[in-house]
Amino acid sequence: MLKDYDFTQLPDTYDEQSIKELGQTFDQLQRELQAAEIPVLILLDGWESSGKGYVLKALTREMDPRYVRVEVYEKETKQEKKHPSAWRYWQKIPSKQEIAIYDRSFYYQVFNHEEPGPESLQQKTQELLAFEQALIDNGTIVLKFFLNISHHTQLERIKTLEASSQADFLLSKEDYKQAKHHDKFLKWFDQVLQATDLDHSPWRIINAEDKKLAAKEILGQTITTIRQEMKRVLEDREVSQAPNRNYQSHSLEVPQEDLERKLSEEEYQRHKEDLQKQAAELVYQCYCHDIPIVLVFEGVDAAGKGGAIKRLTREIDPRSYKIYGIKAPTEEELAHHYLWRFKTKFPQDGLMSIFDRSWYGRVLVERIEGFASEKEWDRAYQEINQMEQILVDHGTIVLKYFLYIDKEEEGRRFKARQDEAAKNYKITEEDWRNREKWDAYMVAMEEMLTRTNQDQAPWHFIASNDKYFARIQVLTQFVDTLEQHLKEK
Amino acid sequence: MLKDYDFTQLPDTYDEQSIKELGQTFDQLQRELQAAEIPVLILLDGWESSGKGYVLKALTREMDPRYVRVEVYEKETKQEKKHPSAWRYWQKIPSKQEIAIYDRSFYYQVFNHEEPGPESLQQKTQELLAFEQALIDNGTIVLKFFLNISHHTQLERIKTLEASSQADFLLSKEDYKQAKHHDKFLKWFDQVLQATDLDHSPWRIINAEDKKLAAKEILGQTITTIRQEMKRVLEDREVSQAPNRNYQSHSLEVPQEDLERKLSEEEYQRHKEDLQKQAAELVYQCYCHDIPIVLVFEGVDAAGKGGAIKRLTREIDPRSYKIYGIKAPTEEELAHHYLWRFKTKFPQDGLMSIFDRSWYGRVLVERIEGFASEKEWDRAYQEINQMEQILVDHGTIVLKYFLYIDKEEEGRRFKARQDEAAKNYKITEEDWRNREKWDAYMVAMEEMLTRTNQDQAPWHFIASNDKYFARIQVLTQFVDTLEQHLKEK
Repeated sequence: MLKDYDFTQLPDTYDEQSIKELGQTFDQLQRELQAAEIPVLILLDGWESSGKGYVLKALTREMDPRYVRVEVYEKETKQEKKHPSAWRYWQKIPSKQEIAIYDRSFYYQVFNHEEPGPESLQQKTQELLAFEQALIDNGTIVLKFFLNISHHTQLERIKTLEASSQADFLLSKEDYKQAKHHDKFLKWFDQVLQATDLDHSPWRIINAEDKKLAAKEILGQTITTIRQEMKRVLEDREVSQAPNRNYQSHSLEVPQEDLERKLSEEEYQRHKEDLQKQAAELVYQCYCHDIPIVLVFEGVDAAGKGGAIKRLTREIDPRSYKIYGIKAPTEEELAHHYLWRFKTKFPQDGLMSIFDRSWYGRVLVERIEGFASEKEWDRAYQEINQMEQILVDHGTIVLKYFLYIDKEEEGRRFKARQDEAAKNYKITEEDWRNREKWDAYMVAMEEMLTRTNQDQAPWHFIASNDKYFARIQVLTQFVDTLEQHLKEK
Repeated sequence: MLKDYDFTQLPDTYDEQSIKELGQTFDQLQRELQAAEIPVLILLDGWESSGKGYVLKALTREMDPRYVRVEVYEKETKQEKKHPSAWRYWQKIPSKQEIAIYDRSFYYQVFNHEEPGPESLQQKTQELLAFEQALIDNGTIVLKFFLNISHHTQLERIKTLEASSQADFLLSKEDYKQAKHHDKFLKWFDQVLQATDLDHSPWRIINAEDKKLAAKEILGQTITTIRQEMKRVLEDREVSQAPNRNYQSHSLEVPQEDLERKLSEEEYQRHKEDLQKQAAELVYQCYCHDIPIVLVFEGVDAAGKGGAIKRLTREIDPRSYKIYGIKAPTEEELAHHYLWRFKTKFPQDGLMSIFDRSWYGRVLVERIEGFASEKEWDRAYQEINQMEQILVDHGTIVLKYFLYIDKEEEGRRFKARQDEAAKNYKITEEDWRNREKWDAYMVAMEEMLTRTNQDQAPWHFIASNDKYFARIQVLTQFVDTLEQHLKEK
């Protein structure tokens, strides 16, 4: 890609139009994108001193600035290092109203790798590729540009910058390093570009020997590509069925003997306190070892998720965890990728996030209520598995609980809630409506439990007809998992 | 306060109730707060090893964890230091559904002051006191606790912790420093406590020699105080008139000669490019000097704010600024203090935030449409002045533009927009409705311009009947202000 690049070949495709005209066309196009609710992400990468600043100006100048956002990514801060590597990019993805331009793509972390070695390349890019793919699959248009200049030009530009009054500021160690070890960097960049070049999202290597021509080329390609991609995204929306769905649906079946398991209050009390203290101690050790923890609680309505969480956290230092009760998404959340609101809530190293309901809403309530199309929720199993895999790869303990009660028990609890003034707020019309869809939920839950039951992030099925039994199970699984994990450290 | 504190006096007010019962009462109260949409902020401060962790657990244990949030504040990160000191506390204020507990109050920065000296105390606490006051004024219930232990107890606790397996982790330099220089710290804490003790928001010094009694006392006082304060907040809501409003309203009057000022296209072009380049260069210098910039654009509809911003930013590196088009608040924004959504958008040192409409909406559209009561918008002038003062004190350049066109010109522009397909999206029914309220807006605008025209953050009135003239004015003011500021550095 960069090797043997022919710098004498000038881009001229968009030469009849001025930068200004292209910019205005782009501005017009942005309004079409906005009306169609299609987010756009432009990644701008390249050599040091290759003119990214100039190109950024050309790209944004004619746009309605309220809907274009430039995000600069430099070296990760301490804070950012305490998360999986795509985390900081997820925070700032474009909403359905926006075009976001990342100055330095997320592949920069790989470009900027200190000790280049192809063996670690695949592992390093995997998470980032998954991130890009997740955006594309959910209807974001992604464009990737790499500004290419020759070694000669880079040296010339450094010389010019050295003469300017702002030399200290404009030139970094990185410039000199690249200029000095040009061949080494070229080889390495080529490897990264190849490893992250996708058929449907190719790298566009731009001849940036002339900044102005480069800016025109990028504007032109952006406009042309967005026009094509808009069509694709809109057509894609029309298709709501999953293309290759061959899952055989079953209803969730739970052996009656599981549901009949019980603990006496005395047994419960005897176990509980010990387990709570152990849980607190183990969380504390995870904190000391910088191990992040993610807990997911899903289950049948009224199965006792809230109560189980309360008992689990009772002795744990409240500074070390946050509990997120997941409700219907807000307007802002709806304008983003459906995983965005969770990505922003993942814990930094050493802390714990507890989700009372979670991203599994995609394949449960959103599936059943039709908020997600079949194609979308069918794809979600893989997206979710991938997301959890990334957490695990980063060193996160992922623990997923599924709390189940049978339909009779749910009926009893709903009624009890309605009758008891202090718990009245817990029961709504919507709960009763959900109950009518019991069978549909059982089918969706069975598929979820089967398709997202990964080795490293398995589901823990908690039979919860007896609350005491359920809470002790939750605590026991928690303690066992953390102990196991800490032992393996 | 701490000096001559009598540790033999034990709190016993809430002694008939167990911690658990108090916790449950607090949980019940939280639902009442939620129904009444009253946010609560609890500040927890005190000596090292005074048992904050224990108290936090007691406070949160029985609560619905979805609506209680613990935020830990340690030393400021590099990133946080690039903002005014209350900034990081503003980010995490409780919404109308929440109780937030700050582990270390925002006065901690002052408690933790390396070189205590009373002369700098007032200045250091001023911004933090303003923050607390702003929350209280807008209906947040604030409680401040300081856990007090004797020197003897602190030494004992350190000894016990040293013996534990987690000593490295539980004991910090700070513990030893306080223990060693107990008297010095005591004197300093007393000064800070006194300086930040407000009649309507006093410090509650809690005898924490016995952690359990301390936790009970805090729970008890929290419950009692919230009950009283809820009443006050609700009564306060009933009052919608400003208590001491004695501003004499006038309509905004603009001399006709101002509005007739014009530039030919040729003059415009001649000045424009030079000014744009200067603007870019000056912003760049502010970046190098870590000076943040805040620009506010307000004005009559169709006065040309968007166009002026575009011309102003044309040559500026898009990585150094963000433009925020302020629209009606989202659900989440509505659930917070009205300034929250702006506080989160202020630039870090060296960068620029441009607001296309702003917090002045409080005294314009919210006043006129009745979204804010007279009492609220009348108070807002002071709140806004204070907020801008804090920015200026931090070293921010604050530049406020007011773009004015007369009613005839607005009529012409509205009509032109409606007729021109490319600009059609810019004109809505709402614009026409606003136009009917022209006179009311003129009264509100006049008051805004008069009451928020501070020396350090003055309004720049831009007569905009002629677009060329207006844009050059905006550019000129910008260049002059930045030049002036950089010269004074």
